[in-house]
Amino acid sequence: MPKPLKHIFVCIQSRPENHPRGSCAAKGGIDVFQAFMQQFDSRKLYDRFALVNTGCLGPCDLGPSVLIYPEGVMYRGIKKTDVATIIEEHLLGGKPVERLMMPKEVWG
Amino acid sequence: MPKPLKHIFVCIQSRPENHPRGSCAAKGGIDVFQAFMQQFDSRKLYDRFALVNTGCLGPCDLGPSVLIYPEGVMYRGIKKTDVATIIEEHLLGGKPVERLMMPKEVWG
Repeated sequence: MPKPLKHIFVCIQSRPENHPRGSCAAKGGIDVFQAFMQQFDSRKLYDRFALVNTGCLGPCDLGPSVLIYPEGVMYRGIKKTDVATIIEEHLLGGKPVERLMMPKEVWG
Repeated sequence: MPKPLKHIFVCIQSRPENHPRGSCAAKGGIDVFQAFMQQFDSRKLYDRFALVNTGCLGPCDLGPSVLIYPEGVMYRGIKKTDVATIIEEHLLGGKPVERLMMPKEVWG
């Protein structure tokens, strides 16, 4: 397994209902992770990119959060309909999707 | 929250007993994650570094696996007694711990 060009981390943290921090799972993070898996399968991305689910990435109130290294770009409020955009523009095109990024005061 | 200097990803993937791939959880990954949490608390590392648990990072047979970005260094077979070494030498000292790294043919 060569080191991937980019490694995609998708928060699927869950918390009890009515927990004050909320969670990415409650906001659709699991759907987002599954959408990434489907795209990785259908576009055969596993040879160049890696994908993994994670626990809490920090900014729960702005989730679902998706983090991409080595560049350290974090996306906020991702919906499953954003996944193809991130793959096309960022992973394949090399240009992070500015409009979906965390604000700089949260992740800067 | 500023972007962390380094982001530490610890695999805590579990699988059913006797699953052919085994898992980092079965090899002590959860103890390793907890040891990192304790060190992050006692050394007050959360202002400069980030720590998160993950699902499968890939090389299950060599786990527990610990991955550090942005440099993309992956460690293998980590025990809770290795955690202070990784923190002192790699996180604080800036020198990855060669003897604990994945072989280059697995993660290169």
